[in-house]
Amino acid sequence: MFDAPMRYDCAIIGTGPAGISAVLTLKAMNKTFIWFGFANLSQKIRKAEMISNYPGLSFISGEEMTRAFLDQIQQMGIEVTEKTVTSVCHMGDYYGLLCDQEMFEAKTVILATGVESIKPIPGELELLGAGVSYCATCDGMLYRGKKIAVVSTSAEYEHEVAYLANLAEKVHFVPLYRDVTIEGGNIEILRKMPREVLGNGRVEMLRFDDMELSLDGVFFLKAAISPSALVMGLETENGHVVVDRQCATNLPGCFAAGDCTGRPYQYVKAAGEGNVAAHSVVRYLG
Amino acid sequence: MFDAPMRYDCAIIGTGPAGISAVLTLKAMNKTFIWFGFANLSQKIRKAEMISNYPGLSFISGEEMTRAFLDQIQQMGIEVTEKTVTSVCHMGDYYGLLCDQEMFEAKTVILATGVESIKPIPGELELLGAGVSYCATCDGMLYRGKKIAVVSTSAEYEHEVAYLANLAEKVHFVPLYRDVTIEGGNIEILRKMPREVLGNGRVEMLRFDDMELSLDGVFFLKAAISPSALVMGLETENGHVVVDRQCATNLPGCFAAGDCTGRPYQYVKAAGEGNVAAHSVVRYLG
Repeated sequence: MFDAPMRYDCAIIGTGPAGISAVLTLKAMNKTFIWFGFANLSQKIRKAEMISNYPGLSFISGEEMTRAFLDQIQQMGIEVTEKTVTSVCHMGDYYGLLCDQEMFEAKTVILATGVESIKPIPGELELLGAGVSYCATCDGMLYRGKKIAVVSTSAEYEHEVAYLANLAEKVHFVPLYRDVTIEGGNIEILRKMPREVLGNGRVEMLRFDDMELSLDGVFFLKAAISPSALVMGLETENGHVVVDRQCATNLPGCFAAGDCTGRPYQYVKAAGEGNVAAHSVVRYLG
Repeated sequence: MFDAPMRYDCAIIGTGPAGISAVLTLKAMNKTFIWFGFANLSQKIRKAEMISNYPGLSFISGEEMTRAFLDQIQQMGIEVTEKTVTSVCHMGDYYGLLCDQEMFEAKTVILATGVESIKPIPGELELLGAGVSYCATCDGMLYRGKKIAVVSTSAEYEHEVAYLANLAEKVHFVPLYRDVTIEGGNIEILRKMPREVLGNGRVEMLRFDDMELSLDGVFFLKAAISPSALVMGLETENGHVVVDRQCATNLPGCFAAGDCTGRPYQYVKAAGEGNVAAHSVVRYLG
């Protein structure tokens, strides 16, 4: 007996201001939804020193703003699902969202994935699924006893690095952030910028400016997978999702909000678009 | 000797969330500006009972939100110019803004005038400037010793009603709100909906469902003059200013934000657009 998964009214990807604003409005409008991201919200906001132009929150630090957002979603009884969505497929009248091996379904999607600060390096997208992976829990088992590199943009992924280190024989860990806390017998930390993934149909090497590593696989753990890699058929331009004034993308029922739709990269612009996207979802659901 | 007026980088019309957001960002970006509206901000926000979906301000009343906004603009050293802009003219490389008899100049304009809750009644726009006026201090002197009606949407205009009552022989006052505090010998309060302004080339009568008043003039005092009446040549559609994703209107250097650009009529959508409009102004100024 196979249980059909719950089909949510909306799936929201991203826990920055756009995603927060969208779920607050969807909740107020009594819609069902699943919200993917980090329970402690966006690392980027938390690290902001001082925000002076967010209306209503005067000269607030990123830490204080995060606290205000966390209190608010808790008061509204909203929860974050801490899973990484690796693929979104348009299935006609609904969307399928793949996280690890798990599939979720929603009638609509709001992409609030932020803007990628780390662009893909040459070879990364070409060898995705052929030794390159964005998801430790999805693909880690494939590298049991093997030699891998893990490139990561944030300390938030260190538990995934630990998970991989338990499987792989050797982990060359390439953190693109300060204050690394992870360590372990088979983890070797490399403070270098990766330049290219090399391989003939399958990953063979990761190239740095002054060296090359022979490897079986490379994991890139980053805050935002680029929307065009995430959603098949999504129209983008210069790395931004193309949306209209109602935050609608070219795919019916798929909306986008916040930094991923383009400049200015500002908290209140993102929050405003999250609200607009939520209203568009409600109108789309009819 | 004639002193050329100061030419501001930007003139912002409206003190709701869109206008507030725009000035906070312009101030942070060191631009000069003049901000027209009410020093106690938007009456509409103040009266909101409870706002649950403004990110960062949890379950806040309109009164508390207004207080937060007022504190913030004060901390930023921003002042409101309490004048009613009655006309905005595109002068090539700058805009002229007429308030009463006074002219202001700005290189760019942000329209954040909100949405008109009271639509013009038949005859109102047709007889504008021929007995119909939107500005007590501009046109009051024309009605010295005459008989006028004053239709008003808010207690904020009662000082203008008092000003008119000092000039006119008789004021038929038609408040479209509760809690009227003004009274006076020659002010007669009428609790009726005005339906039509009548006159052959000039105001002669104001018609209600069950009566008509013979008059020399009719003042409409309302929070928002419709943008199309305010700015010559501005493109609108169904009463909303047509803007692109950067909040640009069809006129170069003229931007619009908030409810006046269309639904959803939401505080955070308006605040987001105010931010976008301010960034567009900065880019336009180069």
